[in-house]
Amino acid sequence: MGQERTDARRPIGVFDSGVGGLTVVRALRAVLPGEDVIYLGDTARVPYGSKSPRTVERYSLTCQQFLLDRGVKLVLIACNTVSATALPALAAASAVPVIGAVEPGASRALAATRNQHIGVIGTLATLRSEAYVRAIAARRPGTSVTVAACPLLVPLAEEGWTDDDIAQLVARRYLAPLFAADPAIDTLVLGCTHYPLLRDVLTRVARELAHRDVAVVDSASAMAEAAREVLGSSANRRTDAGRLDCFATDTSRLDELAPRFLGESLTGFELVDL
Amino acid sequence: MGQERTDARRPIGVFDSGVGGLTVVRALRAVLPGEDVIYLGDTARVPYGSKSPRTVERYSLTCQQFLLDRGVKLVLIACNTVSATALPALAAASAVPVIGAVEPGASRALAATRNQHIGVIGTLATLRSEAYVRAIAARRPGTSVTVAACPLLVPLAEEGWTDDDIAQLVARRYLAPLFAADPAIDTLVLGCTHYPLLRDVLTRVARELAHRDVAVVDSASAMAEAAREVLGSSANRRTDAGRLDCFATDTSRLDELAPRFLGESLTGFELVDL
Repeated sequence: MGQERTDARRPIGVFDSGVGGLTVVRALRAVLPGEDVIYLGDTARVPYGSKSPRTVERYSLTCQQFLLDRGVKLVLIACNTVSATALPALAAASAVPVIGAVEPGASRALAATRNQHIGVIGTLATLRSEAYVRAIAARRPGTSVTVAACPLLVPLAEEGWTDDDIAQLVARRYLAPLFAADPAIDTLVLGCTHYPLLRDVLTRVARELAHRDVAVVDSASAMAEAAREVLGSSANRRTDAGRLDCFATDTSRLDELAPRFLGESLTGFELVDL
Repeated sequence: MGQERTDARRPIGVFDSGVGGLTVVRALRAVLPGEDVIYLGDTARVPYGSKSPRTVERYSLTCQQFLLDRGVKLVLIACNTVSATALPALAAASAVPVIGAVEPGASRALAATRNQHIGVIGTLATLRSEAYVRAIAARRPGTSVTVAACPLLVPLAEEGWTDDDIAQLVARRYLAPLFAADPAIDTLVLGCTHYPLLRDVLTRVARELAHRDVAVVDSASAMAEAAREVLGSSANRRTDAGRLDCFATDTSRLDELAPRFLGESLTGFELVDL
């Protein structure tokens, strides 16, 4: 993993197929505020969720190389689809540690569940890869994992229709099958970068359907905690806020969407051609 | 336009950013059943609707060249976003006629409207380009055009949630502003290849909101009629059904989605790398 080459002052690299990965940057800046961060959104080719594993792997290797060329000490794959599909290839191509979105979320879900019934929602590609099922089974065999693909949640988050009648109906239609079994799931993993924006409505609907409390795990927060653990003494200990540099392969609509996902204003994106 | 090079037996080429353009193939086969058709869906890079004009132009020139290399006598740009953004560049790069999605839909809307108030729904990129506004103004200055971007309609069509409570609420939220003015629109253009699948719910909600009849124009049918006019004597007059060859840049989920848009089963897609 080449951790001997890390240096506290080097930036952390985060990439995603689009702007959704800024929810990971947001979580990262909350947990490690002194770190410099380089973000790359492959917005010209978003979304990866509908593409084949071969295409996802090819695109994501290019994204990671862009960050490695800029001297990052750690790579975070914000995109669940990429993590589920291409983590082995990305880790093999990197001399610095690579953190995917699946393993941290799976660990946290296992820490939360009491009845060993976990639900995972995400894009079709993330779920088809069965990465969450495998990650959970590897840690605790016999845990039951039920999944549901939720294609409408991404455009709902981008429209800002995050807690209204439509969001509720959509959430109910997608989540109902997860709670139809007996026993129902007691833990729900939000396996897509966009979903933290819908966390309130998803949590409320999940509790309504379960008739009791449900633990909701978002992969963005889980990744930020994993980054802190991996960095250890390589973390930047300065007290002033780290710098954030954002790059994108297409700048359409970023000014409107990015602040919603990042939770703060930003100075803008630099356009790059990969 | 090089129409002297056309030959009745050569195929018609249709391309789109994804599978949605199969609604154009469906309309084309209804109007010109004897024609051979080559379809290309750039499914690895779908959707174009969120990309910048520069990216859309670059990708669509590659798609068109793929069809031209296969000897097509006519190119149909099924994608409204591409038509709105890159038609001049595509026409300049082709020796055979090129039909976009915008002009035929605009003509048909002008033939339908009585009160000269037309509404257009589509992707953000299609509407931002103002191609419909310009096409309608060029033909009949002074016509009022009101637009609404509807990002949720594409995933609704792909989920098959085409006429239920969610589809109705979403349709009502998107269409309501088009009917809020006085006088309201009397003609609605479905400016995206996916929308014909939602034609019933959109028509019903439009009539509810208008409290009277509303003409609904879909660009797929309008394009098929335009193709028949452009071909004239170059149309294939044989009576047996034409051949359909489908290509895609990524084959994920095509088996599930394609028949829904085409309205018939198909033998499959050949994977190509552009």
